[in-house]
Amino acid sequence: MKTFETSIRVRYVETDAMGIVHHSNYLNWLELTRILWLDELGCKYSDLEKQGYFLPVVEARIRYKRPVCFDEILRITLQLQDSPRARCTLAYAIFREDVLVAEALTIHAFVNRERRLIKPPETFLRAIGVWSR
Amino acid sequence: MKTFETSIRVRYVETDAMGIVHHSNYLNWLELTRILWLDELGCKYSDLEKQGYFLPVVEARIRYKRPVCFDEILRITLQLQDSPRARCTLAYAIFREDVLVAEALTIHAFVNRERRLIKPPETFLRAIGVWSR
Amino acid sequence: MKTFETSIRVRYVETDAMGIVHHSNYLNWLELTRILWLDELGCKYSDLEKQGYFLPVVEARIRYKRPVCFDEILRITLQLQDSPRARCTLAYAIFREDVLVAEALTIHAFVNRERRLIKPPETFLRAIGVWSR
Amino acid sequence: MKTFETSIRVRYVETDAMGIVHHSNYLNWLELTRILWLDELGCKYSDLEKQGYFLPVVEARIRYKRPVCFDEILRITLQLQDSPRARCTLAYAIFREDVLVAEALTIHAFVNRERRLIKPPETFLRAIGVWSR
Repeated sequence: MKTFETSIRVRYVETDAMGIVHHSNYLNWLELTRILWLDELGCKYSDLEKQGYFLPVVEARIRYKRPVCFDEILRITLQLQDSPRARCTLAYAIFREDVLVAEALTIHAFVNRERRLIKPPETFLRAIGVWSR
Repeated sequence: MKTFETSIRVRYVETDAMGIVHHSNYLNWLELTRILWLDELGCKYSDLEKQGYFLPVVEARIRYKRPVCFDEILRITLQLQDSPRARCTLAYAIFREDVLVAEALTIHAFVNRERRLIKPPETFLRAIGVWSR
Repeated sequence: MKTFETSIRVRYVETDAMGIVHHSNYLNWLELTRILWLDELGCKYSDLEKQGYFLPVVEARIRYKRPVCFDEILRITLQLQDSPRARCTLAYAIFREDVLVAEALTIHAFVNRERRLIKPPETFLRAIGVWSR
Repeated sequence: MKTFETSIRVRYVETDAMGIVHHSNYLNWLELTRILWLDELGCKYSDLEKQGYFLPVVEARIRYKRPVCFDEILRITLQLQDSPRARCTLAYAIFREDVLVAEALTIHAFVNRERRLIKPPETFLRAIGVWSR
């Protein structure tokens, strides 16, 4: 399966009093990865919104396997797990060097400005052809 | 099963450009609810940390059912779903009036300062007796 | 001068790896205080936005005098320092018990949906009469 | 005066219901810029902390001149304005292309683990020689 990959460097603001990254920030890293993946698909998310397509998260799951700390460089991979009709499921893995530090999954729905489910845009459907095999 | 309940009022900073709450903030509301529940158990989390007990999140799952907006008052319920040995699973539901807007689950492990798994403190084990039935 | 007052309890997510609250969170506490003050004025901010009035921050200044930690209860005071035409300057002080832990100031402008400066709503102007002396 | 420069891309989570970036996030961008500047000085902040030096913000001021939106690329410049003894004042400017969108200033103090003021490390003092003229 095709894999998108990016990397982030942990920000100080993302840490908490345990001395490690606060668990809520991982969702923001997944979002960041998703946005860069959409760039690569040729469906910039900022353009999608201008065209009236919104892609809210309808479900998120994260397994935190190892703590991560300030200034660490993390590699994040994304795979399209499934994309039937208006939904799309993305699977992520977060690594520090070769160590898997977290696994995650987000499910999204395409909605319009009134938050009604809609068919994804054609450009997206065409672009993910190669990702969904 | 015994249920703990609190309520929060959505902060402006928690919203995003979709005009609704950004999905990452729910994790912070769950944390807040957990901390208040620990207060009620007589195990203040700030005391636990002083005694060398830490309770990181090892897994989190959220299902976002309805968007929530700035200034809305949300009711959050917490139930102890399971607590075998060093782990503990909490289930949450978030309501706006009587509408379920999100469901969530967090799994925690008791660890010491060196992040080794440890047995939960006696006060916690005694306190949850009544919650785990 | 008339003073509005509220209190907050420090959230875990607001802390950082120094073991204290990350400095960016103070801005959110000021916002929270402002929103509660507007409630008391009878100008709920959520209503203002529905009526087409937005109140972005055009300037912010904070002096951090003492670190604050997780779970501490902080008292925040707000005073209207000045409100000529479309602007309004608010002064804040943050206390832990009787110790001043931070001082801050925010300047706001009333703008419409297109971000043009506009005259504040009448309800606001009337309400602040008693605050600006 | 010597100027350090970096750029950031606005994250979705940084926006709020006004459709623009929430003002509290600018402080995080300043922090990010500072950390990269310290890298360039050869004083990585993560190393400083390991050596027992902490650099909390003791004062911050921001003037928000233009709203900024999701996905915009912003250029941030940093100049060392002053650094007498244990303090250090940094001035920042944030640009979208050639438009100044915000100006800011942060003041820092070097403190040890017990939060007592201390002399900055020699590596820092030597490195800023060229920045403070």
